[in-house]
Amino acid sequence: MCESNAYLKDGDNEVMLMESVDTIEPYENGLKLMDSFGKQMFIKAKIKNMTLLNHRIILEKLPLDNL
Amino acid sequence: MCESNAYLKDGDNEVMLMESVDTIEPYENGLKLMDSFGKQMFIKAKIKNMTLLNHRIILEKLPLDNL
Repeated sequence: MCESNAYLKDGDNEVMLMESVDTIEPYENGLKLMDSFGKQMFIKAKIKNMTLLNHRIILEKLPLDNL
Repeated sequence: MCESNAYLKDGDNEVMLMESVDTIEPYENGLKLMDSFGKQMFIKAKIKNMTLLNHRIILEKLPLDNL
């Protein structure tokens, strides 16, 4: 399967946010993620890096003053 | 393989930009795309929608006054 896992970068750590992400699109001031089961998540973050062959999507929190 | 194809939305059309995209990351005022052969492309666009299970990444040109 070709879904990727989404991680949120928090300092030097990367925290797993959602497994098996199928869809990502901009939503209001952040992103909407949906996994392959249809579960949705909204997060005030932007894409920092995606490597699809590694199944990794790294997100980064948006600074609060951008909201 | 789990690469996706990147398309640029142009009105109602979607124009193929790059096949077999592996990596996407922000770059200056746009995005850097790299395919699975290492070919790079820079484009002043943002991600409009990605559906990984359909292998589709839709990009949208940034308005010129954002550059």
